[in-house]
Amino acid sequence: MAETDLNDTPLKLRLRAVIFGTDTPAGRYFDITLIVSIVISVMLILLDTTGYIHQEYGDLIQIVEWFFTIVFTAEYVLRLYCSANSWSYARSFYGVIDLLSILPSYLVFFFPSANFALVIRVFRLFRIFRVLKLLRYLSEGNMLLRSMLQSARKVFIFFFSVSLVIMVLGAVMYVVEGPSNGFTSIPKSIYWTIVTITTVGYGDITPQTNLGQGIAAFTMLLGYSIIAIPTGILTAEISQEMTKQRDLRSCSNCAKTGHHSDAHFCLNCGTELPDEI
Amino acid sequence: MAETDLNDTPLKLRLRAVIFGTDTPAGRYFDITLIVSIVISVMLILLDTTGYIHQEYGDLIQIVEWFFTIVFTAEYVLRLYCSANSWSYARSFYGVIDLLSILPSYLVFFFPSANFALVIRVFRLFRIFRVLKLLRYLSEGNMLLRSMLQSARKVFIFFFSVSLVIMVLGAVMYVVEGPSNGFTSIPKSIYWTIVTITTVGYGDITPQTNLGQGIAAFTMLLGYSIIAIPTGILTAEISQEMTKQRDLRSCSNCAKTGHHSDAHFCLNCGTELPDEI
Amino acid sequence: MAETDLNDTPLKLRLRAVIFGTDTPAGRYFDITLIVSIVISVMLILLDTTGYIHQEYGDLIQIVEWFFTIVFTAEYVLRLYCSANSWSYARSFYGVIDLLSILPSYLVFFFPSANFALVIRVFRLFRIFRVLKLLRYLSEGNMLLRSMLQSARKVFIFFFSVSLVIMVLGAVMYVVEGPSNGFTSIPKSIYWTIVTITTVGYGDITPQTNLGQGIAAFTMLLGYSIIAIPTGILTAEISQEMTKQRDLRSCSNCAKTGHHSDAHFCLNCGTELPDEI
Amino acid sequence: MAETDLNDTPLKLRLRAVIFGTDTPAGRYFDITLIVSIVISVMLILLDTTGYIHQEYGDLIQIVEWFFTIVFTAEYVLRLYCSANSWSYARSFYGVIDLLSILPSYLVFFFPSANFALVIRVFRLFRIFRVLKLLRYLSEGNMLLRSMLQSARKVFIFFFSVSLVIMVLGAVMYVVEGPSNGFTSIPKSIYWTIVTITTVGYGDITPQTNLGQGIAAFTMLLGYSIIAIPTGILTAEISQEMTKQRDLRSCSNCAKTGHHSDAHFCLNCGTELPDEI
Repeated sequence: MAETDLNDTPLKLRLRAVIFGTDTPAGRYFDITLIVSIVISVMLILLDTTGYIHQEYGDLIQIVEWFFTIVFTAEYVLRLYCSANSWSYARSFYGVIDLLSILPSYLVFFFPSANFALVIRVFRLFRIFRVLKLLRYLSEGNMLLRSMLQSARKVFIFFFSVSLVIMVLGAVMYVVEGPSNGFTSIPKSIYWTIVTITTVGYGDITPQTNLGQGIAAFTMLLGYSIIAIPTGILTAEISQEMTKQRDLRSCSNCAKTGHHSDAHFCLNCGTELPDEI
Repeated sequence: MAETDLNDTPLKLRLRAVIFGTDTPAGRYFDITLIVSIVISVMLILLDTTGYIHQEYGDLIQIVEWFFTIVFTAEYVLRLYCSANSWSYARSFYGVIDLLSILPSYLVFFFPSANFALVIRVFRLFRIFRVLKLLRYLSEGNMLLRSMLQSARKVFIFFFSVSLVIMVLGAVMYVVEGPSNGFTSIPKSIYWTIVTITTVGYGDITPQTNLGQGIAAFTMLLGYSIIAIPTGILTAEISQEMTKQRDLRSCSNCAKTGHHSDAHFCLNCGTELPDEI
Repeated sequence: MAETDLNDTPLKLRLRAVIFGTDTPAGRYFDITLIVSIVISVMLILLDTTGYIHQEYGDLIQIVEWFFTIVFTAEYVLRLYCSANSWSYARSFYGVIDLLSILPSYLVFFFPSANFALVIRVFRLFRIFRVLKLLRYLSEGNMLLRSMLQSARKVFIFFFSVSLVIMVLGAVMYVVEGPSNGFTSIPKSIYWTIVTITTVGYGDITPQTNLGQGIAAFTMLLGYSIIAIPTGILTAEISQEMTKQRDLRSCSNCAKTGHHSDAHFCLNCGTELPDEI
Repeated sequence: MAETDLNDTPLKLRLRAVIFGTDTPAGRYFDITLIVSIVISVMLILLDTTGYIHQEYGDLIQIVEWFFTIVFTAEYVLRLYCSANSWSYARSFYGVIDLLSILPSYLVFFFPSANFALVIRVFRLFRIFRVLKLLRYLSEGNMLLRSMLQSARKVFIFFFSVSLVIMVLGAVMYVVEGPSNGFTSIPKSIYWTIVTITTVGYGDITPQTNLGQGIAAFTMLLGYSIIAIPTGILTAEISQEMTKQRDLRSCSNCAKTGHHSDAHFCLNCGTELPDEI
């Protein structure tokens, strides 16, 4: 993580180990403090949009928000300073997220128009993505991601076919039910079809004619059965991924493979197995 | 794809390669242009049904729609002309879809009655199915289709049994709740049962009596648990299909089978493996 | 199916082959005619409950219904007559269903009180279960049934645990939201919890307080994730059942097992395989 | 279960076998009687909250409730008395549940304030958890629990990622729809997002703008497809767990493994197999 360079001062190196690293206790405390700050700050932004809390504690929240903005700004400047390559950090995914999490607060300060401020304020919420850094402590995520990427093409074809069906069903319902029953346009009918086929079922638009209710019933049963397809694809991928991991767990003594993920000893010769990869 | 015939003129052969083929760059550009035209044209038909856009841009949309109709007509005539067997193209699935995607526009022109026009106009939407031709570029679809066809009989038996249960639950709810609570007839009660058992839950008809709510709760839990059955059938089929594909990936050197879909070298002798089938 | 007895007259034997058997063409035509009659008769009962159709065609439907009742009665009497053991047929599952499908019509004739008639009439719908006889033509049903029976105990434990959670969540919501927000009693709160946890979501009762909405959100996410459990159990059972069927498909020449369900030749020696069991 | 101690009197030992044990017929009858009492008592508490039943049978229910409270108190005292180590029983999970199931009744007696009583009364419902003791008779629960624990980390990562997406989608909908369409604050918008992404769909808050309905449609399709992920994880775990159990079923004669769960004889040498583990 923390690459060294001959020009680096000892201060820079120590800061880098704390801010970017996770090996030292100081580095780990820094990470935890940061994540707690992010979560508190995000909670405050959420709560500030409820009328009651804004009236009672609005001023207090604004002060705390400025405190966090200054802390996060300091952190961003330090990251730029102690990074091995400041410019490449600034352009990285987390560099952009880090900047976006402080920028909106200053923008609201300089352009305090009410309507604009709301959008800007909500943008501050994107700092929640900084918590994603937490994922580097976890290894299971990689397996899930790999399974999802491998099934992505199949799932895409599924959604492509389903979207054709949705479009046609939406158009048919527009003709059958018509604007007087709430199906005011084909896009709205398509919205209704998605609400129905995904089994969400708000009930804000419902078919009133017998034929419409028949088509709706068909749409529901369709949605109910095709939900099986992405599940089937992904389950098969995850199963294959697990089998592969098991095949990779070979005994260092007799090279026997196929050990279960919770096996501790070789099933052939009894040699202790290393932990799961 | 593009069969040759001794009577074919060079023009016919070149046109056929462009319009029907996907091997030449011109053939590929033609396909892409066509698909973009279809998508734009379908979007316009959708948007034209919303009141606001129809009022503002209705005339413009009609002109663009006529432009696309003429383009698609020209394409259809060219396909008829350069096809190896015009009549067999005209009767094929895509031949009928191609004709249906231009016919409605002319029908509206000749029979401009308002109510009829709406239905005809929506029919133009069926040109979206021409996009399905795109699927020939994709191979994953075949595996999904194969899995679905193999599980079709089991899924059919499932839906046959479920439909008996739905009918009886609908009839029971009609007796328990009765017309005063919105269950005005058995077909409507069956509609409600489908809305409930598929977990859509519009809420346009809801049970009011205690007994009715009890039966409704039972119906929900039933629907919630039997959703597992089609999923289970399809997942098992897809898993089996994947295992089969893996069994088919044999090494050309030592004939060892059972390679994972992302393996690049034989696990036994290290020979490079061909790409997945 | 059709057991013989020394006392059976030739007429009895022929009738039995037609009515109970499925081997002769006459037996098959009889079955198909019967199933078509049942479906038409059930459709008429369903449609008769809709106000409009009852007013217009009520008398006609009643005549057709009496026609079918007489036909089904004749069939029942014939079955009793030509059955090898009349009494054991009368007590069998299909014997009871056959009787129940004609009895209500006569009951309505003798006790024509309006309210009672509705219930009796709906009972006639149970004749739809006679269609289940159709299933003897299908073999896939057995595999599904076997998988379901084997997972029944695990699914029962799942629903037992879920019902405890539902009860406690219902009670908590009753305390949090109270009668003023529609949670008028704990049984009604439990009804709401089932509507929510199965992701049906009618919206006839919705939480109004912040705490209630928080608990509701938790309930939804819980329901959304535990739906995985019955699916997982059943999928694993079906997979195992399929693997077992594959293991059972052995070559008659070299005894090699493990053939895929759509393999036609032995993968080891090329001998033609029998059809799937 | 029932440990012995030199200080134990014969009475204590016999009581312990009946109350804590399940080996003797008396112990089994005691358990069954207890569970029936718990279920009846819980049903009464549920029914007592419905207005009609409270008015008609409120006094009777209160008497029966006191009867059960005294019975459960006696049982608790007996358990404390005959337990090998009273204090460790009192602190155990079931010891606390047993105490909590009688305490509320006495608290209502001593502090009869109306509002407080409601909460206390509902607390009595927690006695339903005593039924969990029933699970010791069932072995399938262990396998399910093991599968769930092994997939817990993966499912947690899934929900962590989904909750970030829910938060951002909620914030975006708050900006797009605004308080005038029911999205009065970001927490409420997040509540709406959960209602939508889990496909519950109450319909108490629904998007009104075109952009909002578009984002809603995206949210539904997302929820509809990611439901596959926890299902896939759990199914793969259960499958692996089943395969492992099969691998563990070895023949005592020839040590051949891999027998199906419903096999009764060794597939290699025909020796009878022990029951499934």
